[in-house]
Amino acid sequence: MPEDRLWQDLMALAEITDPAKSYTRRCFTDRFLEGRRWLERRFAEAGLTTRLDEGGNLIGRLEGGVSGLKALAIGSHSDTVPSGGRFDGPLGLLAGLEVVRLLKDRDVALRHPLEIIDFLSEEPSDYGPSCIGSRAMTGFLDAGMLGLRNPAGEPLQEAMTRMGALPERLTAPLRNDVAAFLELHIEQARVLEQGGLDIGLVTGIVGIARVEIEFTGSADHAGTTPFHLRQDALVAAADLILQARRLGEHFSRTRNGYFIATTGRIEVHPNASNVVPGLARLMVEARAEQAAHLDAFLEELALASLAAASAAGVERSAFRPISRSEPSPCDGRLRDHLAAAAGELSLKTISLASGAGHDAGFMGRIAPMAMIFVPSREGRSHCPEEWTEPAQCAAGARVLYEAVRRIDGDIAFG
Amino acid sequence: MPEDRLWQDLMALAEITDPAKSYTRRCFTDRFLEGRRWLERRFAEAGLTTRLDEGGNLIGRLEGGVSGLKALAIGSHSDTVPSGGRFDGPLGLLAGLEVVRLLKDRDVALRHPLEIIDFLSEEPSDYGPSCIGSRAMTGFLDAGMLGLRNPAGEPLQEAMTRMGALPERLTAPLRNDVAAFLELHIEQARVLEQGGLDIGLVTGIVGIARVEIEFTGSADHAGTTPFHLRQDALVAAADLILQARRLGEHFSRTRNGYFIATTGRIEVHPNASNVVPGLARLMVEARAEQAAHLDAFLEELALASLAAASAAGVERSAFRPISRSEPSPCDGRLRDHLAAAAGELSLKTISLASGAGHDAGFMGRIAPMAMIFVPSREGRSHCPEEWTEPAQCAAGARVLYEAVRRIDGDIAFG
Repeated sequence: MPEDRLWQDLMALAEITDPAKSYTRRCFTDRFLEGRRWLERRFAEAGLTTRLDEGGNLIGRLEGGVSGLKALAIGSHSDTVPSGGRFDGPLGLLAGLEVVRLLKDRDVALRHPLEIIDFLSEEPSDYGPSCIGSRAMTGFLDAGMLGLRNPAGEPLQEAMTRMGALPERLTAPLRNDVAAFLELHIEQARVLEQGGLDIGLVTGIVGIARVEIEFTGSADHAGTTPFHLRQDALVAAADLILQARRLGEHFSRTRNGYFIATTGRIEVHPNASNVVPGLARLMVEARAEQAAHLDAFLEELALASLAAASAAGVERSAFRPISRSEPSPCDGRLRDHLAAAAGELSLKTISLASGAGHDAGFMGRIAPMAMIFVPSREGRSHCPEEWTEPAQCAAGARVLYEAVRRIDGDIAFG
Repeated sequence: MPEDRLWQDLMALAEITDPAKSYTRRCFTDRFLEGRRWLERRFAEAGLTTRLDEGGNLIGRLEGGVSGLKALAIGSHSDTVPSGGRFDGPLGLLAGLEVVRLLKDRDVALRHPLEIIDFLSEEPSDYGPSCIGSRAMTGFLDAGMLGLRNPAGEPLQEAMTRMGALPERLTAPLRNDVAAFLELHIEQARVLEQGGLDIGLVTGIVGIARVEIEFTGSADHAGTTPFHLRQDALVAAADLILQARRLGEHFSRTRNGYFIATTGRIEVHPNASNVVPGLARLMVEARAEQAAHLDAFLEELALASLAAASAAGVERSAFRPISRSEPSPCDGRLRDHLAAAAGELSLKTISLASGAGHDAGFMGRIAPMAMIFVPSREGRSHCPEEWTEPAQCAAGARVLYEAVRRIDGDIAFG
């Protein structure tokens, strides 16, 4: 049974973990390389030729029947967050491998070459950025990022070299020969589960803007400083947290496409029960399918932060953009093929945005790209409880298989 | 000049500091004991007999002319916070010493014994509680507190023994022979400075109630969890921070006596930019001259915290009283003597509450007690910039001197 084969692979790769905290296979560690060696053997067993590209991505390739055609590619990542799950990343890779096996089982020859790509360090690492391999492949890993160091002082460039990459050659996109890119991923949310659905047809991957906002007041004695003399930075921060939430809900209701905003981090100094907070720093992030909505939100947030500072009698001492990635819409024609494939399999689907970033987001810059989701139990992810049923994983792999056959036959893709 | 003598003592004691972070003389350290040896020599030079009591308080005593009378006592503390100032504590002690010297200079014999008391560990230490020596003297240091350990695992009881105390004997108040207690302290706020005033006549020392409030939501993915499925603990916390401020201002305006409230601490988990905060913990404190106002505030705060939790769809998982000290009103007759002394010296005064806790707060449980404040430049305290002018320090000492003479002659005090 194909379900069994895919499931056994998922469970086997999960066994390659730091024993003290299952499931952990962080990029740039020996454990990660152990996982890759296992993966390379599976690729080879399935008849793929394997190589590492200059970005440190492991690629398994099956040549196609028609020479000169660009490749169809399926990819995701084998690295995990610390104490992560078994599905986020591996499922997309091993479902790609399952597509290769199904082609072989059914004796189907594709016109296009087919590649399965394990992108390097999709998860944030100690060096900072996420999606290192897909950035490298698409020309978005710049010298500044390559120079970022982990806490031990090692630059990312050296860490990539340890993983077999050739970062000194990363001066332009590595590929112009990809006809279409597909990624299967767990949803990491509860929309599919709550709707009793099988497959999420992704409309696009959100862009993400993060901004650090700092309020500076005066760290006065909490007993002796009357209200009218206070400059309480935490009061300003609290005000802005509520405004950011309200503003986010307003955008979510009134703008087309997915929009979400979160204040996830707060840091207060001196953070002592008997001292008026003199400094508060917030990290607010917004995610949207449309770049213009990110811009508009940040503009309104900046105004709200000034108002919050003024009301609390403190200074808004910083409004500092920390990172920004642009939204990546999924290709309409690929979405149609995925929808048709799911329909053929009588699976229940919904169209939804991806609120999380994925390697597919970068691949969308160099090729038509689309994604599908399978359900996550209770929406849990990045934790050992992450779970998708065997049949749900298999359904995702079948959709990929059917879609690859359809795309292979669509002259729009070569 | 007496000013010079007092000032030179202040500056000399300040020199006994951890050199890396002036001014630091934390209790339970060798540096603290070095300061105490210096102080003991000054006490002895001024003709005081010195001893350590069972609570580890250093006491210098001058016998009085009439046998059987209870003591007049002046006290404060020689320990500091880390990177603290030169005045918070030492000024009250050295002004007491100056009173002794002025009596000698002017050949004045008191009827009552006079004691100058250096209370052990007025500042919070690594063992937790503040005002350890004055709690011990007044019977408020219980077995639970004595068992508290510092991060290295040493119990407070052992640390006190290292300082020369006999904590095993602390089963009841140590003294029933104090006729009156006076403390001079820096204001640690800006009321005197802003009013161009010399002396603050303290009406009472606030009681302090601290409560830890915890909101438990769900630490979901910040990209994939739509607003209607969120349980954001930080949103509830922000709501409560604003409500606590508003409620505090309302109490301050509408209740008689001083009232202030502060949210000084916040802790958020996981505190990551891309995760909806799953847990937020706040520390709210209220300070009031009247115990009933603390009770009423906590009651309203508890209701507000439930409302904030409900609005954010999270659980208010704890509303945990952390500490409580009762208000300590200053004795009216002592206040009159202090006011008369300041008047005689043509000093400008104001009546105001002490929003900070002091050893005098505990001494008020076993004897009539009163305090005066001298100005703090820019209200700064617990920092190296803490400053009071030499003439302002001297004025405070003169008020103490004149008041001691008056109290000594008042038959209400024996």
